[in-house]
Parts: sequence; C-alpha cells; structure tokens
Amino acid sequence: MYQSFDKTTSPDTAAPRLAALRAEMAAQGLDGVLVPRADAHQGENVAPRDERLAWLTGFTGSAGFAVALAEEAAIFVDGRYTLQVRAQTDTDAFAPQDWTGKEVGPWIAERLSEGTIGFDPWLHTPREIARLTKDLPKGVELRPLDANPLDAAWSDQPAPPAAPLVIHPLDFAGEAHADKRARLAEDLRAKGAGAAVLSLPDSIAWLLNIRGADIARTPVALLFAILHGDATVDLFGAEGRTPDEVADHLGPDVRIHPADALLPALAALDGPVALHRASAPVALADALSHVELIDFEPVHRPKARKNDAEIAGSRAAHRRDGAAMAGFLHWLAEEGPTGRLTEIAIAKELESRRRTANELRDISFETISGSGPNGAIVHYRVTEETDRTLTTGELMLVDSGGQYLDGTTDITRTIAIAIGEVDPDAARAFTLVLKGMIAVSRLRFPPGLAGQHLDAVARVPLWEAGFDYAHGTGHGVGAYLGVHEGPQGLARRYTEPFETGNILSNEPGYYREGAFGIRLENLVVVEAPTVPEGGDLPMHGFETLTLAPIDRALILPHLLTRDEREWLDAYHARVLAEIGDLVPPATRDWLTAACAPLSA
Amino acid sequence: MYQSFDKTTSPDTAAPRLAALRAEMAAQGLDGVLVPRADAHQGENVAPRDERLAWLTGFTGSAGFAVALAEEAAIFVDGRYTLQVRAQTDTDAFAPQDWTGKEVGPWIAERLSEGTIGFDPWLHTPREIARLTKDLPKGVELRPLDANPLDAAWSDQPAPPAAPLVIHPLDFAGEAHADKRARLAEDLRAKGAGAAVLSLPDSIAWLLNIRGADIARTPVALLFAILHGDATVDLFGAEGRTPDEVADHLGPDVRIHPADALLPALAALDGPVALHRASAPVALADALSHVELIDFEPVHRPKARKNDAEIAGSRAAHRRDGAAMAGFLHWLAEEGPTGRLTEIAIAKELESRRRTANELRDISFETISGSGPNGAIVHYRVTEETDRTLTTGELMLVDSGGQYLDGTTDITRTIAIAIGEVDPDAARAFTLVLKGMIAVSRLRFPPGLAGQHLDAVARVPLWEAGFDYAHGTGHGVGAYLGVHEGPQGLARRYTEPFETGNILSNEPGYYREGAFGIRLENLVVVEAPTVPEGGDLPMHGFETLTLAPIDRALILPHLLTRDEREWLDAYHARVLAEIGDLVPPATRDWLTAACAPLSA
Repeated sequence: MYQSFDKTTSPDTAAPRLAALRAEMAAQGLDGVLVPRADAHQGENVAPRDERLAWLTGFTGSAGFAVALAEEAAIFVDGRYTLQVRAQTDTDAFAPQDWTGKEVGPWIAERLSEGTIGFDPWLHTPREIARLTKDLPKGVELRPLDANPLDAAWSDQPAPPAAPLVIHPLDFAGEAHADKRARLAEDLRAKGAGAAVLSLPDSIAWLLNIRGADIARTPVALLFAILHGDATVDLFGAEGRTPDEVADHLGPDVRIHPADALLPALAALDGPVALHRASAPVALADALSHVELIDFEPVHRPKARKNDAEIAGSRAAHRRDGAAMAGFLHWLAEEGPTGRLTEIAIAKELESRRRTANELRDISFETISGSGPNGAIVHYRVTEETDRTLTTGELMLVDSGGQYLDGTTDITRTIAIAIGEVDPDAARAFTLVLKGMIAVSRLRFPPGLAGQHLDAVARVPLWEAGFDYAHGTGHGVGAYLGVHEGPQGLARRYTEPFETGNILSNEPGYYREGAFGIRLENLVVVEAPTVPEGGDLPMHGFETLTLAPIDRALILPHLLTRDEREWLDAYHARVLAEIGDLVPPATRDWLTAACAPLSA
Repeated sequence: MYQSFDKTTSPDTAAPRLAALRAEMAAQGLDGVLVPRADAHQGENVAPRDERLAWLTGFTGSAGFAVALAEEAAIFVDGRYTLQVRAQTDTDAFAPQDWTGKEVGPWIAERLSEGTIGFDPWLHTPREIARLTKDLPKGVELRPLDANPLDAAWSDQPAPPAAPLVIHPLDFAGEAHADKRARLAEDLRAKGAGAAVLSLPDSIAWLLNIRGADIARTPVALLFAILHGDATVDLFGAEGRTPDEVADHLGPDVRIHPADALLPALAALDGPVALHRASAPVALADALSHVELIDFEPVHRPKARKNDAEIAGSRAAHRRDGAAMAGFLHWLAEEGPTGRLTEIAIAKELESRRRTANELRDISFETISGSGPNGAIVHYRVTEETDRTLTTGELMLVDSGGQYLDGTTDITRTIAIAIGEVDPDAARAFTLVLKGMIAVSRLRFPPGLAGQHLDAVARVPLWEAGFDYAHGTGHGVGAYLGVHEGPQGLARRYTEPFETGNILSNEPGYYREGAFGIRLENLVVVEAPTVPEGGDLPMHGFETLTLAPIDRALILPHLLTRDEREWLDAYHARVLAEIGDLVPPATRDWLTAACAPLSA
C-alpha cells in the first residue's frame, strides 16, 4: 500500500521539542523562529526530512505555519485543519490560530515590538518575507539564518532524499528536452533574461523529461537548475544519482552538479536573471543580489499546455483508471450495503484495484474516503482513529487518483450506500452538484478567459438553492507530475487565461456538516478553439478525460434539462464504450446497467 | 425634442482649426498639445464649451483623444467609432488611430524624442498623465499649461454653463444630506483623511440632494466640493446660481463659493486629503502638492447602494416608462410593417410618448434607433444622413431611457418588423440572447462577488452557439443621475463586489454585421441577501425593474428550458399587471396579447 492510515505523530512530543528549539534559539541570540510547512521547493508534498512542522508540533496537515517565541508559540492553520490541529498538537505549547495567510505578522506584532526572528532562507519565498516584513514593527528584524535551529534540535532528522533519476520516455513526453530547452531559452531572451534559476521540481522534471522518487505522490527529484539563454542547463543535486542512461538522455548540454555547486554557480551569473518571487527560496534571491532579477517562471505556462502525446497518454491512463474505478464501484455496490465495510477498507480496495494492471507508480494523493458525516469534511483523511463502518442510507465520498507513466488521474465519486430509496435531500443536492459539473463539461468559451470568469458556471444551480461549496471548482493537473499544478485553475483566484491543452479538474460539491458530503470530479482538457456549426467565433471546449459512471440512484431526473440529460446519457454511453472491454464480465454487466440512459 | 438628428460638425473645419491651434502652440513654445474629449469632471456628457475635440476635429463621439504636433496630428478612437471618425474628420489633418487606451504614448514616442507637449491640467487625471509619461521618451516633457491653447484659438467658444441648482426632494433621495455628510465624514476619518476633494458632479449632486442642468442627459451642475471631516461642505461654482430655497435646503454647513475660490481653499487644507487619482483633474492634485493624498472617492459606493426611497422611485419611474414603451411598441407593431417608418420617426415617437405623462426631465442618453443592418452598430446614433426606412422582415433595435425625478431608466427592445414569419436565424439568436438575459434575471449569488465573476452567466448560451457580444453585460445606473455610473458593473472589467441596492443593466446582445442587431435590456436592482427555502446561505438576487414586453414573435420556445419559460411568462404577467392600467384600452388589448404565456 502507498497509503498509510497510521497516526504518525503524537501531541506529547510538542512541548519537549519546543523546549529544545528554544534552547537553540537562545544559543543563536534569537527572540523567535519561523517554522513553515515547506521545503526549498515550496512543494505540496515534502520529504520526511522536511516535515519540520509535523516533527515540532505533531500537526501533519499539508499547510501550516508555526512561530516560536521565547514565551509563547502559535500554530496557524486554515479552515480545513481547525479540528485536526487541536487533535494533533499540544495546544498549551502551540496556540492554534486561524490562518488565511495574513495573521502571522499581526500575531507577532502584538507580542514583540523589537527583537530578532530567525528564518531559514531556503524555506521561504521573497514574496512571503516581503509581506511578513510589512506587518511587523520596525524594531523587529527578520533574519535569514545560516543554519536552521530546528534541524539542530532534531537529532534524528532523516537525510535528504536521493533517489535515482529516471528518464520520462519521449513517447509520453511528446517533445525532446532539447526542443523544450531551445524554445524556453527563446522565451527567456525575449524577456530580456540571460538565464533562469529553476527551483520547482516539476518544472525541472518537465523541462528535461526526467522523473524522480524523492517525495511521495509526485514523481520528481528535488533539484535546482539554471536554464541559460543558450538553451543549456546546469542541474544541481543530480550528481551521484544520475544513472548512465539518464546522463546519455540528458546529453552534453545538461551539466550535472552536486547540490553544493548551486550557490557558487549563481554567484558567477551576470546579466538579468529570471527568478520567480512567489516560489523560489529567499536563499536564491540573496545569492543573486548582484544581478537584476526578472520575476518570471519560464516553465509554468508551457508545461500546462499539454501536447498531443501527453493528452493521448492521459486518455489511456484514464481508461485504465476508469476500469479500476468500475471494478471498485461494482464491488462497493455489492459490499457497501452489507454493513461490513469501513472507510479504510474502501481506500485499500481502491488502491489494490488500481495496482492490478501493474502500471500504477503511486497514488496521486492520499485517498479521501469519507462516509456519512465524514464526507462533509472536505480534506478528510481517514486514520485508524477516525475510521467508521458504512451503514445503509449513507453517502460515501471517494476522492482518489493514480500516478501512471502516461498520466495523472484525479476522480471523485459519491455513491449511495443503499438498496432502494435514498435520502431525497441528498439526491436533490447531488443532482444540483451534477448540474454544475455538466455545465462546465458542456461549456464553450472564447480564448482569453480565466478561472475567475468561469468558476460561477458550476455554482449557479447550487446558488439558486442557497447552497455553495467552500473550495474552487477545479485545479490544474500535471502529466505524470503534480496532481495540483498552476498556473491555470477553475476558481475565482485564478487570473491566468486558459490555453489549449490545459488539464483541469471539474469538481463542484456540496457539504452538509454532520450529515453528508457530495463531490463529483472529472478531469477535462481544454480543446483548441473551433467555430461551432453556424457560429461566428472560435470557442474552446472541455473534453472530459475521466471515465466512470455517476451514481444514477442519486439523480432526480426531473431537475435536469433536456441538454443535461443528453450530456449524461452520452457520457455514460462513452464510459461503457471505452472501458467496457477492460473489465471482467460481471463488472461489465454491472457497468452496462450503471451506464443505461436516464430516460430508459 | 431633447434629441437632435442634425449633423453638428463638418470635416472642412478640421484643417484651418488645426492650423490656428498650431499657431497658439508655436506662440507658447510647445512641440505638441493633447486634446482629450473630456471636461474637468471626466463626464461622459460635456457642456458645449468643453466639446473641444469636436470643435477641433469634427468628431462627435463620446470618447476620443487627439494629439497635435507641429507637423502631424492624430485622433485616437476605440472600435465603436472606427467608421464614424473617418466620416466626421479630415483624415489628412488628423490620422485616425485605433485606441484601446495605450496607443497615444507610443505614437508620440515614434515621432518625438525630445520636446515639450502641453496639456490642460483640468482635463486629465493624475493616473492618465502618469501612464502617458511612462510611455514617452525621457526627453519629452508633459507640461501642464496655465491656459488651454485650443481655447485661445476657439474665438466663439461658449461660456461655461451656469444653470440654477435645484433641490432633489427628500421623498426621492430618501436620506437628508446632513445624514449623508455625517456618515461619509465618518468614512473619511476612518481612512485617515481630514477632507475629501470632490470633482464628480454626480457625487456632489447625490451628497447634497441637489440637481442641475449644466449638461445634457445627466441632471447635474458642474461643481467642485470639499467634504470636511466635520461633515461640513465647501461648494465651489455655486455662487450666483443658488436660489434661496436651495440655499435654505443646503443650510449653514454647506458654504457656497464662486468657482475661483477653489484653488485658494485647497491651498489652505492640511492633513491627509482624499483625492481620486482616476477621476480628479491634475490641477487639483497639483494644488494639493503640500499635503498627503489618499486615493479614495468617498461617494461612489454609498451612492451606488440605493436606499428604499430611491428603489421605490425607480419602480414608479419604470412603471411610467413601461407604459410609454407599451404605447410605443403597440404603435410600432401597427406602423412598422407599413413601410413608412424611419429610424428618426421612431426615436421621435418614443420621446414624445415618454413626454406624455409630463414627468420626463430629459432622455437619459441619445436613443439608439437602429433598423436592419444599423442595429448591428452597437453605439449607432441615427442622423438625417444615416436614417433609413424600415422594411418588413427586418429587426428594429431601440435602446433608450428617460430621466424622471424619481428615477433613471434604460431599456432596449428588439422587435421583428414583420407580419407572420421571421428570419429563423434571427429568431434563434434572439432566443439565445433572451436565455442569457433570463439567466442573469434568475441568478442568485453569494455576497462578495463582482461583475468579473458573473458576466459569463449571460453569455453561456451564446458561446455554445459560437456567438458573443463585444460589450459588457451591464453597467451601473444612477437614481435620477448618470445612466452610467460605477463602481459596480456586470462585466469582466469590474472588480467591485455587488452590494444590496445597486441598480444595474442586464443587456446581452448579438450583432451580425450588415444584417441585424439584437439586444435586450432590463434594469435590475440587487436584492438584500436572503436564504432560499431549504438552503444554507444567504444569496443576493436581482429584482427586475424594467416593465415592457419582449417580442414573442422572435422567441423559439423549444430552445427555452421549463425554468426559462416560467420566468418569461411570470415576467410578462407582471408587466401586464403593473402597467396594464396605465395604457389606453387599445394598447391594453395589444399588451394583453403581447404578454400572453408562451405555452398558450
């Protein structure tokens, strides 16, 4: 199993570890220290060595921020983690604080009018430090530290990961890395930059058609790179773990270096250099203080425009993933009402079905397996402690995905665990969520629009009923890379226009606290603009990639328009046509019924 | 008639007037001069005295910008006016240029690497000059002039308007000006400002519950004001035209001054002062160079939140306006197919019907009366030269509005001039536009959203067909004030969240060049958030204010969903119920048929 359901931390360690950290702070003459949940690559997943926040506080969520002062300490978490943080940390040691991104500075300012707060310049971005500095009193200095005091206190801190690099085959990548380097170098020169310093592992993996295994869930190596205006690359952190065939693949224009060669190489750069203020570490900006910096990440947009090979790969991955989902949903339909299944059993069954084809490289994130009221916890992650047994009449929400060589998947289905009648309230809400998902699926839109303009399309049916969901409608998805990637997304905070080839999730939901949660999620890819028959203007559309039935038991057909019913029937017909031959006969029979037209 | 259909300018005068301007430029030692279509109040409508651009170039559009250099001159206009500018100006004198707001600087920079360009600091905002300066070579100076050289060349320039101020009665305003001043002064103090300098006539009119008659179409006086933190006001430009009853109404806390007292009063201000960089003239910013400026317009948002009296007034105005429209539409249904009507005759008939109730104070803008292919010109303004006679089978687009004491209206209807069959292409497009309008009308949405998030809702049905319209879905509308007012609007450029009481237009369209134009426009008011039955969250809605039938001959019912048909039938039933008693019996019979349910 990739996924573990164990408790990995305990609140008991928070107080003694905080004391150890404070001893280090005192030794370094610091009045406070920042402990973000971050590594040098600002990744959503971090290596065990970088789980500093979890080690210190016990809190294991994917976003958080601690501040330790001499007398007080706080842990800042967003709305997803309000309950979890209280269960995982010692709140006498770390006072939990609501966090929308703005609260850290004012909290410090209330307690400290002068003094020095240390931070690890590898774990924060220039943008983050600039914002924080604005909120602090003039007498409080934020000081970048040569050595992280927490690492000094963490005696058994794991070593940095160093898994061997692997080639991402051209059949899946669709474009040779020499070609990618050449066109991105041209973009760089057009921006007036002589080089770009890359700190995002997925950017480097995409650029060089390599993958790695340094962290869970995302197949990347934790590297840094310099892309030069002449299209050559210096790659740092790769020495000693680049097998010969990978070195051959990279060729002479990609020079392999140890990690500690990075800072000297930066010191040797001249001319304007591109560095992304929102994602690069402060340490890199400081090492480049002698040159003009251009705030630009050259890989983001090209990477998000998936090419034909990547899209073909994603379609193939989604067929296999859909077959695994169909087998799983069939099993769930049979086993769910027995009253024997637990959330963990469901997550395990799903992962094992994804493994069946022997092509699964990892799951793309921790499966969210939430039954009944747990389904209403948007980022629920089941553990042995929270696990519950399904009972009939409940809804079961399963949000999961796989990492395959040819593509990354992410799918959510909500299923009625019931024989016969379902809760009409839940069915109504489910149907409204489905209407939102269909509205996005059917949408045509002109080039130039961004997520901020289109997110509402998925919400209109829910808003009409006085419902909403407190998350975006969709996020970008990588090609055998991160399951969350920018710069586009289908939410109000996204201003980057959609481009042909962007892969996005389409996942409206509805959550009734203490009762049930509903989410439906398909991945879609932005189609090239074409002029609809009889129309004037080229319009993008979304091709749906995800192939798995949507539970008809929860659909109230009278709430759907004719266009919506036609979309659903056509989608189900396509699911059956594309994955019907990939599942065993018994599942095929179940799938045939699950994909029957609504009107039948 | 308020509206005139005469040609008011001629291309012949452009060259000699440009020569006269150049002589003034030379006398002042200038290498160029800027001639915006603007007054000191950045109004959409300007007084005859401020029609400098039209006087100089012949171009009469509502937006444009000329630059005169010693050897070359250009006129910049946006896409609406590309054709019109070529008809109205002498293009040998003024080379027409496309204008999206960014082209002026580069045009100058291509022709001038050093020199001095003069501008009238009363006609430009600090934001505009800052932008332009960025685009100019370092050797080119933008110099604010003490006297406008065009005014020196314009020997018969009209005098500034000085119509008497009038009271806007409390029954319509809904809040005493003392209360408005008190709460806005509190907002000011909260922003850290001791005073605000107001240059927008509608802000001043709203704040003091006064109206004026200095310009056409918008019932305001061209005044400046200082709102002080103690809630008193200094009003400049009002001396000599404030009747006693208006002075009584204003009371001792509103001090009346001549226009020339403004600059000395600004010089006497201290402490931070609020001045809106996007709408105040440079001359005011320069006069305040001794104090800290806060970029803030205190009236915009409160003015846009219409109170109960203003909303009640708008409903009453819309009932009268709807009755006039019903009479007009009945007349058009009978006279249109005769082949005798012209666009001008239609505009005149509509204005005369609005005058019938003796409550019309002005039209709220020049009526757009576009038949057949003229309907596809979004900002078409018929003149004797362009006027055409309607023929059967055509569409007729009429966009018009009235200024009533109790409210400002703005309505567009598109009518089939036909007996029997209509063009099925036009009917399909009309129905898609209607679907967009209904989607906005039915929309519920959570507080905090802005036009950028919701504009798409009106376009989804058109996009699906490969259609779109090159204008926003809606603009804010004043309460017996400007027919276009901010800060909210229903378009992608608007970031200001909607608030309860905002009045907006809802006007999707579709334009087929050379063939026909379709637009449907109702005004709506943002309702206070309420929780829909069975829902969780309070949602805003839009109450439709406009009351006039939508041409059923152009609706293809099979393209509407059940919800859309229900909305339309309910709307028509309401139109009949609210205005049926206000029209003559013959019109009532016509209206009854026009408002019959679709399904009947």
